[in-house]
Amino acid sequence: MKRITIVGLGLMGGSLGLALRRRGGWRVTGLARRSTTIKEALRAGALHEGFIDPARALAGADVVVYCSPVDKIIPLARHHRRWVPAGALVMDVGSVKGPIVREMEKLFSGQNHTAFVGAHPMAGSEKTGVANAREDLYQGTVCVLAKTPRTDAGRLVQASRFWKSVGARVRVLDPDTHDRVVALVSHLPHAIADALTLAVGDGAGPAGVRLAKELAAGSYRDATRVAGADPGLWRGIFTLNDRAVRRAVSLFSKNLNGLVRQGWRVGDLRRAQRLNAFLKDLS
Amino acid sequence: MKRITIVGLGLMGGSLGLALRRRGGWRVTGLARRSTTIKEALRAGALHEGFIDPARALAGADVVVYCSPVDKIIPLARHHRRWVPAGALVMDVGSVKGPIVREMEKLFSGQNHTAFVGAHPMAGSEKTGVANAREDLYQGTVCVLAKTPRTDAGRLVQASRFWKSVGARVRVLDPDTHDRVVALVSHLPHAIADALTLAVGDGAGPAGVRLAKELAAGSYRDATRVAGADPGLWRGIFTLNDRAVRRAVSLFSKNLNGLVRQGWRVGDLRRAQRLNAFLKDLS
Repeated sequence: MKRITIVGLGLMGGSLGLALRRRGGWRVTGLARRSTTIKEALRAGALHEGFIDPARALAGADVVVYCSPVDKIIPLARHHRRWVPAGALVMDVGSVKGPIVREMEKLFSGQNHTAFVGAHPMAGSEKTGVANAREDLYQGTVCVLAKTPRTDAGRLVQASRFWKSVGARVRVLDPDTHDRVVALVSHLPHAIADALTLAVGDGAGPAGVRLAKELAAGSYRDATRVAGADPGLWRGIFTLNDRAVRRAVSLFSKNLNGLVRQGWRVGDLRRAQRLNAFLKDLS
Repeated sequence: MKRITIVGLGLMGGSLGLALRRRGGWRVTGLARRSTTIKEALRAGALHEGFIDPARALAGADVVVYCSPVDKIIPLARHHRRWVPAGALVMDVGSVKGPIVREMEKLFSGQNHTAFVGAHPMAGSEKTGVANAREDLYQGTVCVLAKTPRTDAGRLVQASRFWKSVGARVRVLDPDTHDRVVALVSHLPHAIADALTLAVGDGAGPAGVRLAKELAAGSYRDATRVAGADPGLWRGIFTLNDRAVRRAVSLFSKNLNGLVRQGWRVGDLRRAQRLNAFLKDLS
């Protein structure tokens, strides 16, 4: 029986606990800031035991996975490192990899290698918290593992087996490529959803918001599905991946302004049509 | 038995024919540019009869509805007006109202009033053409009727009854308010979907597009559902509503750049969250 400590018991951490308990072979320990969170996770069946005391939660762990909001991972790990057993594999599930991997590799480094492997299982939902946790959350999703020159080959294999065991397809990438592409296909759409919602608020005016609601088409509803998703969490993601998100916003703005300035060229719209067909297997 | 001539037999025109035939009380005549389109509409059961000759199609019509792409409505009406019977109610279903209503009111004006009432039934789909027509396309949708100082009160009542008879909820608005709000909640999301798709193409690069496809999150898929929708049709919509769309794009860009420049303030994200909850009845 291997021991895992899950740090942070929200949607991601709770679902990981459920998946591992379902699979068996793991003693699942939870670590959270509040005892009510631990009680809720225990009630949901996501844990064997849980603590608010990091020393007790981390003692004897073979694997430690940080499932906290991205901006909490490094501060928590700094505080915890004295209690993390020397041989343990340490991972996180944050949506941003570069800054987290760089810092975590330092925090958990041995002589020649690091005990840390950054992961980003691309699962999620607008619904947050352990109350929405599902044992199949990771089933069929892509899990990116961040590989750097310091990554230990054995740990990478161990991490890969771990995520495959909960149903994910593993993709090894360098952290900066991950951050650049995820900025385009996840962080940018979230920022757009926020800005589109705010623009409708500004443009319709107080009297017009009701009218906007009445006339809102399917295209608006879909484009803003994730608008305002967990403001604290997303502030952390945008901020931590600031450089790549800025670049993505600027590329997007260049294209949007180009469409306007060039008078909505049918060639540009056709290029969007072809790319969209490729990106979604519609062709 | 009243007679209606539907001009343009795509998704909108075909679905209107199906709905009216289902309802009964109408002799449904179609007018299209190509005889293959008419054959297809007849096979779909959307028409009693169809012509490519406007004189024959328009003879004896009580109601004429333009269901052509927005940039074709005015040129077609200019050509047809000599054959439109004096007493007929003339309508269109275009997504832009100001420029169409202003021109159509002139084309179909009597001494004190106009025979024209602009309509915008907010139904549609990425799937176009009579092959995708459905008799319930208008069921439960909002249909905006454009009212101007020249609108005839009796015609407006007649138009309202007409759209209610196919299941739409009628909303009377002045054309410029319509165009301003629809620019925000429909045209802007379409432009965003195009620009986001093009940005991913630019930002990922030829080698990276496959990776982008692999990592594309639900937020990306939803935000780009309508990307590249019918390039010719949408070029017409963007161009005809250019002023309102430009203003919407500029409001949106101001908000997006504000989020970036002010460092992703949690207050802005919370405002987006509240507005989104209101606009979608999530609160």
